[in-house]
Amino acid sequence: MQPINIGICGLGTVGYGSYGVLERNQEEISRRLGKRLCVSHIAVLALKDGQEVGDVKITNDAMSVARDPDVDILLELIGGTEFAYDLILEAISNGKHVVTANKALIATHGNAIFKAARANNVIVAYEAAVAGGIPIIKVLREGLAANKINWLAGIINGTGNYILTEMQSRSRPFADVLKEAQGLGYAEADPTYDVEGIDAAHKLTILSALAFGTPLHLEKAYTEGISQITPEDLQYADELGYRIKHLGISSISDQGIDLRVHPTLIAKQALIAKVDGVMNAVLVHGDAVGSTLYYGAGAGAEPTASAVVADVIDVARRLECMQEEQEQIPALGFQTEALRETKILPIEEVVCAYYLRISVQDKVGVIADITEILGENEISIDAMIQKDPDKSGQDHNAISVIIMTHEIQEAIMNKAITELEALDAVNTGITRIRVTELGE
Amino acid sequence: MQPINIGICGLGTVGYGSYGVLERNQEEISRRLGKRLCVSHIAVLALKDGQEVGDVKITNDAMSVARDPDVDILLELIGGTEFAYDLILEAISNGKHVVTANKALIATHGNAIFKAARANNVIVAYEAAVAGGIPIIKVLREGLAANKINWLAGIINGTGNYILTEMQSRSRPFADVLKEAQGLGYAEADPTYDVEGIDAAHKLTILSALAFGTPLHLEKAYTEGISQITPEDLQYADELGYRIKHLGISSISDQGIDLRVHPTLIAKQALIAKVDGVMNAVLVHGDAVGSTLYYGAGAGAEPTASAVVADVIDVARRLECMQEEQEQIPALGFQTEALRETKILPIEEVVCAYYLRISVQDKVGVIADITEILGENEISIDAMIQKDPDKSGQDHNAISVIIMTHEIQEAIMNKAITELEALDAVNTGITRIRVTELGE
Repeated sequence: MQPINIGICGLGTVGYGSYGVLERNQEEISRRLGKRLCVSHIAVLALKDGQEVGDVKITNDAMSVARDPDVDILLELIGGTEFAYDLILEAISNGKHVVTANKALIATHGNAIFKAARANNVIVAYEAAVAGGIPIIKVLREGLAANKINWLAGIINGTGNYILTEMQSRSRPFADVLKEAQGLGYAEADPTYDVEGIDAAHKLTILSALAFGTPLHLEKAYTEGISQITPEDLQYADELGYRIKHLGISSISDQGIDLRVHPTLIAKQALIAKVDGVMNAVLVHGDAVGSTLYYGAGAGAEPTASAVVADVIDVARRLECMQEEQEQIPALGFQTEALRETKILPIEEVVCAYYLRISVQDKVGVIADITEILGENEISIDAMIQKDPDKSGQDHNAISVIIMTHEIQEAIMNKAITELEALDAVNTGITRIRVTELGE
Repeated sequence: MQPINIGICGLGTVGYGSYGVLERNQEEISRRLGKRLCVSHIAVLALKDGQEVGDVKITNDAMSVARDPDVDILLELIGGTEFAYDLILEAISNGKHVVTANKALIATHGNAIFKAARANNVIVAYEAAVAGGIPIIKVLREGLAANKINWLAGIINGTGNYILTEMQSRSRPFADVLKEAQGLGYAEADPTYDVEGIDAAHKLTILSALAFGTPLHLEKAYTEGISQITPEDLQYADELGYRIKHLGISSISDQGIDLRVHPTLIAKQALIAKVDGVMNAVLVHGDAVGSTLYYGAGAGAEPTASAVVADVIDVARRLECMQEEQEQIPALGFQTEALRETKILPIEEVVCAYYLRISVQDKVGVIADITEILGENEISIDAMIQKDPDKSGQDHNAISVIIMTHEIQEAIMNKAITELEALDAVNTGITRIRVTELGE
């Protein structure tokens, strides 16, 4: 039987990892597949020290791989959203199936890529784009296909979760832990994508479209990072029975879809609150299955390669039965013509409960003023704690008032915060962290 | 486009649940599938009060559904291993695809069923047979297909986990909690299958074959239930930093495959140790992906229906591209001719650490005698605690000695226990619970 030829474009961490898994597990994979996978082409500018590849055609021109008639499946593992985009479109127009780990590209240009793939009757698979080795794309697209998905929530950025876990367990400030994470290789030199939630927004955008059957709308995702979280907030949340996690959350209701990435308080006893360090986890709630959780390594050469190669196997299994008239397993889980534009709620329309940390001058009547403003805005208080002045701080008269509210629309909370900050006794810069109730 | 006709055989909890999900989510499913699923036939002895089915051909003769040329996919939701077996073989020989939730049947007769299915070029899907709505079969067969699976361990019986959770949190004995669970409908009137580990052994047998590419060998599974666990053991385990969970464990090494269901101590901080109540969770470790965990409801009408209907969708997606010469997605994840008979280790050859609770007469030298026997058998002690006589017990002079050992082969432990029980000062009936180290 003819082997299936694979062209790997990009031989960085994920590319070389995928090459390694394809070689090492060749026999196991053939036992599953009944066919042999063969890495026939590699496009790389130059092999790095220590990188060894066997009898493979090596080129520094990835486009030539996309055009080579001998290549059946092209792995786009270059990254970025410009050249990688052109490369994938070229591969598609040459009738090649594509596997990519590129979350930024799928979140940004996925709609166009899937359209081109369908027109050319090829598969574009992207399991590795979200949550590394956890097969969450397959779970949403196939495993839970009987369900109306109600909501999903995930820890989908390992760097951010590592930083929050360390801040929590060792009471250390964000900047210190970030520096340490950079030293350990858990955070990039420019950590913006990870700590400001952009990477998580890419992944959430993909998960949300798969769950609810909409086109991808990265531009409508609300994104907030973890750089403003302090060890005090983690401590106060703990006292109130919560952990703070950086979650991507998407849910659907009659009002529309919310699509938001931000730090959030979650009850300590929730399983997802116990997911620590660089690990990822995604909770998915379907109308029939209820709550399910998927946990594993969200990054790294081998876990990501696990997803890339699983996609290759999937494509190989489907190679001989591509049918033009119908999408056997559509890229976003729903048939293209069944995708529905659905309103994505601006953050101001989202309803949730809040944690507020308000620094106030320790004067008579200030608490009464605060509760009055909340009451006027119909924001009810679930819990309140008051903390003595921080002797080490600059302002020896400031005390912290921590308030947990019941659910309220974000726009109303914004208005209330503006009014609170206008009080003489309230210092500016009220900390506001959303609270998520998950029905695990 | 012609709808795909489904014949449901058996309208109990799972059958009626599956009917309900197919009806309720018909539109969502069509959006995913691009075709319409239609329940055309139902075989049931008599509709129960409150059961309503629409325009469907109802019969009390399930075999007639298996032979009806209008049926495309037959759902075997009758249960049991006799009539259900004949029914499935009849459906297969009539060229019908089959979806079943029947773990006992697959574990017992799966090899013959899959052989018949292959000979007739039809699919037999059984996602619902293990861990309810968690798509763990698909994960092993497809999502982690790039990996050599090293081991898996699962809480795969919700009843047992509920009982242990209640015993732990409320310090209540097994028999009391069992009675309560029966009252709540969490345990059957005859609880043997659940509490003696038989149900879990069915499921583990299936997971193990899928993970390691072997035929099914239920008869070689080692099975031990939870009826011997006492609140004291849960308490002592807690003091030592552990939870006791009833796990199915299967791993592969050069010596062979272990396939065992028994109570086991697991470190408290492991995520799977935090899975409480009726929930299920399966940990899978692959050589590339590392440890991953899958969590959700393991039983119930709707979670099980979620898996049944996902299988129906999968089959429907593959209907038009069944290829005789090759198994596109083989039933056990590996091509039939690539399945390998692999030695399954008898429990005596399994190596693990142990928790021992030894009731001894409070006499000088007894601890020395115990440690001497362990030493002679080259069993090293990891931790030991000694507990005062239980004033409420019958024997006022008996004290409990709890010993955690390092890893040792079960046969050696058996020999040591026999020697320990021969000591005058040691009461018979040493409690022995295995300890599992999971590399989460």
